[in-house]
Amino acid sequence: MLRKTCTLSALVLAIALTATATRGGTDMNERYDRGWAALSALAPEKARTVQESLADIAPDMARFVVEFGYGDVFTRPGLSPALRQTATIAALAALGNAAPQLRFHIEAGLAAGLSPAEIIEILYVTTVFAGFPAGLNGLAAARQVFADRGVTPPPAPAPETTDRRTRGLAALEATSRNAGRQVLDSLADLAPDMAGFILDFSYGDVIARNILTPAHKEIAMIAAATARGTMEPQLKVHVKAARAVGVSREQIVEVLIQMAVYAGFPAALNGLGVARTAFAEIGE
Amino acid sequence: MLRKTCTLSALVLAIALTATATRGGTDMNERYDRGWAALSALAPEKARTVQESLADIAPDMARFVVEFGYGDVFTRPGLSPALRQTATIAALAALGNAAPQLRFHIEAGLAAGLSPAEIIEILYVTTVFAGFPAGLNGLAAARQVFADRGVTPPPAPAPETTDRRTRGLAALEATSRNAGRQVLDSLADLAPDMAGFILDFSYGDVIARNILTPAHKEIAMIAAATARGTMEPQLKVHVKAARAVGVSREQIVEVLIQMAVYAGFPAALNGLGVARTAFAEIGE
Amino acid sequence: MLRKTCTLSALVLAIALTATATRGGTDMNERYDRGWAALSALAPEKARTVQESLADIAPDMARFVVEFGYGDVFTRPGLSPALRQTATIAALAALGNAAPQLRFHIEAGLAAGLSPAEIIEILYVTTVFAGFPAGLNGLAAARQVFADRGVTPPPAPAPETTDRRTRGLAALEATSRNAGRQVLDSLADLAPDMAGFILDFSYGDVIARNILTPAHKEIAMIAAATARGTMEPQLKVHVKAARAVGVSREQIVEVLIQMAVYAGFPAALNGLGVARTAFAEIGE
Repeated sequence: MLRKTCTLSALVLAIALTATATRGGTDMNERYDRGWAALSALAPEKARTVQESLADIAPDMARFVVEFGYGDVFTRPGLSPALRQTATIAALAALGNAAPQLRFHIEAGLAAGLSPAEIIEILYVTTVFAGFPAGLNGLAAARQVFADRGVTPPPAPAPETTDRRTRGLAALEATSRNAGRQVLDSLADLAPDMAGFILDFSYGDVIARNILTPAHKEIAMIAAATARGTMEPQLKVHVKAARAVGVSREQIVEVLIQMAVYAGFPAALNGLGVARTAFAEIGE
Repeated sequence: MLRKTCTLSALVLAIALTATATRGGTDMNERYDRGWAALSALAPEKARTVQESLADIAPDMARFVVEFGYGDVFTRPGLSPALRQTATIAALAALGNAAPQLRFHIEAGLAAGLSPAEIIEILYVTTVFAGFPAGLNGLAAARQVFADRGVTPPPAPAPETTDRRTRGLAALEATSRNAGRQVLDSLADLAPDMAGFILDFSYGDVIARNILTPAHKEIAMIAAATARGTMEPQLKVHVKAARAVGVSREQIVEVLIQMAVYAGFPAALNGLGVARTAFAEIGE
Repeated sequence: MLRKTCTLSALVLAIALTATATRGGTDMNERYDRGWAALSALAPEKARTVQESLADIAPDMARFVVEFGYGDVFTRPGLSPALRQTATIAALAALGNAAPQLRFHIEAGLAAGLSPAEIIEILYVTTVFAGFPAGLNGLAAARQVFADRGVTPPPAPAPETTDRRTRGLAALEATSRNAGRQVLDSLADLAPDMAGFILDFSYGDVIARNILTPAHKEIAMIAAATARGTMEPQLKVHVKAARAVGVSREQIVEVLIQMAVYAGFPAALNGLGVARTAFAEIGE
């Protein structure tokens, strides 16, 4: 029903945009139709606003967003809309330089089936990869979207009953097959307390949280690291970790392709290069 | 005439700033004069506003912007003002974290002779390198500058009559002498559809557009990749591509030096290192 | 006295936040208490605002900021509060994507004992590493904080009496033990003027300024380079330079650990990797 209403809106807008699309040299085509159906099902009002704001200055950009971003990439099989929005939210929060798009994709994430609590958790994971300012500004974006949409913030998760170190070690061993352990050992000479922070804070306080599945969290981490483009060793660790917790090769590749839209083709291509190395190192 | 008026404004401001510059230990010197003449010819009102806003808190910064940014770098021979603004617009849009400066340089780009349509195209090229959020926020900056200056947005370009793959292949072969082809082949095992996106979207939809010359586009790509500093393989490909479409070694070096001002010295130095490797690999 | 007042405020807030912290599974603990005492001594009003704004949407984030950011990291021995704020200001200005946090830490820097003039100097140093837009936007943040707090901007420093090249060479030789010289030589073939800019502008105009000590400046540069994560060669040079001007290994490690909070764990870990190499290369 939601989809039907949105398709109707899409048709109305499609008529309005016909001149534009035709000027751009492409009649309303199958890529556009598929993309617009997906985009308008997620955030119909904002999608229309973006399209209209581009109509006078860069109509081809409006078309590319729909055709490429949604018709070519978002609607690919292999990764659900909710996991695609997970990757995009983590990427934009980690980049920290695209607040309007981050708000758009938080709203789209809700429409794709992410719960408010899951969106908050994606931003916790991003904090580990991109720092507290990135996490705090991401939460500010979420707060605004939740308020605009009348969404009740999630209740705080249930208290943890284990200690941080125990939780952290368990989470690390479950996802990283000794790779994380090796990072910790490698800090013993230079910054042993940093190893403690990774175990207690990154893994114990954040990654061990149980609102998102381990697979879901690894997808957020892969997206954040790929978008920033400055975290090759950590990206390799988490591609392997993702495989260890059941993320398929196809899903990982889809997350990396999704990054071409939100962080540019070089980020996606370099992420694919890291993934290839990681797969080879675990014999895949 | 424009230049004469601006020089007069420069003189007026020069008098106002004399105390500042003298306190900074440098009488109005030749570097300052040359820089201010260039800067005030581009965006006299905004240049004055920036200078005045710095006068109380960091007068030496006001001086460095003029002396180094314009007197030392911008006024160097080897790259036209329009191509320098091309590089700066692409860099700031790719970084995505300096909206006031991006608006400043879009205005300065118009003054340096870039057409509104050319500025829009620079932002299309940046979208491929830094993602749609970067491109969309760049277009928002352009829209605001065009509105403030009463500039009519450019008409949409003429429709393409060839198909995307054909255009993409032609653009790729013209610029990359097999290097791009090799990237595509290298994706066959892991993400073959990504290769299609590069060919059809990056090259077919965007890089094949014919409003900017191939040389002009390569300069934008080199600047975007250097400023972000996370795209070494792609920067190397596009330094070679730039040479293939007639950008001189000197012009490439000037683009990279220009990046010291807008993305910092490390970005420029690392870009020069990549360029040296690229030149060596093509026997230069 | 300031500390006593703040501790009282902390107690008041602690009562208000008790439900939150308990829900998060951690009673007001020693890490939280230590962190809150440090945080509320720096910027009590803004700290409370941040905590309150997170209470409904992400109470665990409010707790993590205090426990990890301040209780675990900020209060570590080995680096003074003023030098920690130096690192954070440089990092956030270099990232350029977290304006609210940059303003927060400029205010906290004043509370930690940095003078307004020293804060301005940190932003000058950042300009060399991250470009003029980053420096200018950092100065805009400082201007706003100074105005809000009724702080008088610092007077311009005394005029320099030596020429730029002489100052630059002296600063370079004092800090870089030939490493910088080698960078300059390495540019002779490709971009000799760039070498001049480094000597005259980066070192002569900026790094030679004498408001901050050489050690203080190296800490700012290490933080900026680590946070951006795209400047590995330059980070290595400046880790060595920091040792040459008397920054201890422990202080360098503390700066890098501090970056886990503000730029994410991967940035900190990759910075530690570079530091390990730098230390080894100078026989430490």
